[in-house]
Amino acid sequence: MVTAVRGTDVRTRPDRLAGEEPMAIRVAGPGQAPIDIAVTMRTPGHEAELAVGFLYAEGLISGADEVAGVELGNPGALSRPDDEVLVRLRRPFDAGLVADRHFAVSSACGICGKAALDDVHVRARPIPNGPVIPPGILWSLPARLREAQAVFEATGGLHAAGLFEADGTLIAVREDIGRHNALDKLIGGRLLAGELPLHGQILLMSGRAGFELVQKAAVAGAPILAAVSAPSDLAVEAAERLGMTLVGFLRGDGFNVYTRPDRVATGRV
Amino acid sequence: MVTAVRGTDVRTRPDRLAGEEPMAIRVAGPGQAPIDIAVTMRTPGHEAELAVGFLYAEGLISGADEVAGVELGNPGALSRPDDEVLVRLRRPFDAGLVADRHFAVSSACGICGKAALDDVHVRARPIPNGPVIPPGILWSLPARLREAQAVFEATGGLHAAGLFEADGTLIAVREDIGRHNALDKLIGGRLLAGELPLHGQILLMSGRAGFELVQKAAVAGAPILAAVSAPSDLAVEAAERLGMTLVGFLRGDGFNVYTRPDRVATGRV
Repeated sequence: MVTAVRGTDVRTRPDRLAGEEPMAIRVAGPGQAPIDIAVTMRTPGHEAELAVGFLYAEGLISGADEVAGVELGNPGALSRPDDEVLVRLRRPFDAGLVADRHFAVSSACGICGKAALDDVHVRARPIPNGPVIPPGILWSLPARLREAQAVFEATGGLHAAGLFEADGTLIAVREDIGRHNALDKLIGGRLLAGELPLHGQILLMSGRAGFELVQKAAVAGAPILAAVSAPSDLAVEAAERLGMTLVGFLRGDGFNVYTRPDRVATGRV
Repeated sequence: MVTAVRGTDVRTRPDRLAGEEPMAIRVAGPGQAPIDIAVTMRTPGHEAELAVGFLYAEGLISGADEVAGVELGNPGALSRPDDEVLVRLRRPFDAGLVADRHFAVSSACGICGKAALDDVHVRARPIPNGPVIPPGILWSLPARLREAQAVFEATGGLHAAGLFEADGTLIAVREDIGRHNALDKLIGGRLLAGELPLHGQILLMSGRAGFELVQKAAVAGAPILAAVSAPSDLAVEAAERLGMTLVGFLRGDGFNVYTRPDRVATGRV
């Protein structure tokens, strides 16, 4: 129950809240005991995609062919059966990778596992040129994302990551209290579907664009990352170096292009 | 430079971006070699406060009397002299605390260092009853926070944490691309000033309220945490258990009280 105050009107009513729960990610190769990788605060839903997407973004797996299966399990102490996710690999997992990197994540964590500053930049594939998107397509994306969002309208508490074709067709949307988790879920889903890299497509984030989102998008091969709100300076620097088009403040009939404007057809609407 | 598109108007202009840079937090007791604690993506500014506030929120220090000094240093590889912060303690630091907890943080990280789910809940002090705030005071806070924000208006990219007296007087404001960092900076500043706990005062966050913000606020003894946007279900659960008043959607002349409504004087405006 919530006490809702609007001017002098005060009423107590039921309320719907965005879900937030810890989820543990574990990995095991054939015959290996599960190895703890990370704990993330996330919104329940799409647990397997979140785990796989996180491992992929962090460079711990490189494709769906390495994944033998994903198990949702509860060793006893947790409130939900999906609060612990075990990703089984077809190959041995080097536990030293984790010991070296000290993983621990939050709802918006993406540089997780970097014990020092000099390895913040993870690997990213070269991104090919194109597509070239007319502004009218970009303008249409935030409304399409909102339409597809399942929970935001009810709670106001979730971020969304959306994937679109170059013509604006929605491919997939994922939600989470943490925008990094939303993007991990989206990319993990594409990986499990065998649909990576994201060449020729457009990623849209409901919030701001920080460095870590650019990094995750680049690892997935996305040529265009658009955000409804502001990018950071480091996000712009990373996008420039990685050859990604970074669009910010995508609202109404406006947006800013920070890097690689050749992928936006500003001459035609 | 940014390519700004507004309808058919396209122009290239200089732009100001929110700063985002990694910062390493290290700790050393008397005669000890520095121990790496965490790397966080943050907006430059108030580095000492951020480091101390983080250590306090995570339970690694319990007060200003343990801090002998804070040094901003650059061992060579980093771009700024304040990208590495060393907190010198008056007592030995137990390196085992870090090895057990596997710290690594992001701009919005707060459960950092928890290798397992069952230790997500860190210690928090009991919060005394009161103060009792009239709605009119709460309504006035977001505008006061925005007025005090140094960078947001220019970049649109920063979160803010504000601390207010019960009568609405602004005590301090801190900004960061990560709302957890903004709160760590604010609390770290109060700790260094010898002004903890935050009894009788009001904390206001510019964004949403997740579990980790409630946890940090509770460790600092804040009786009221207000957020401009939505809380999560776990944030509400934690606030209820910790005896904190959690206010969400504080906008215009409205807000929702999720827990401990006895601290809001809904009968008078």
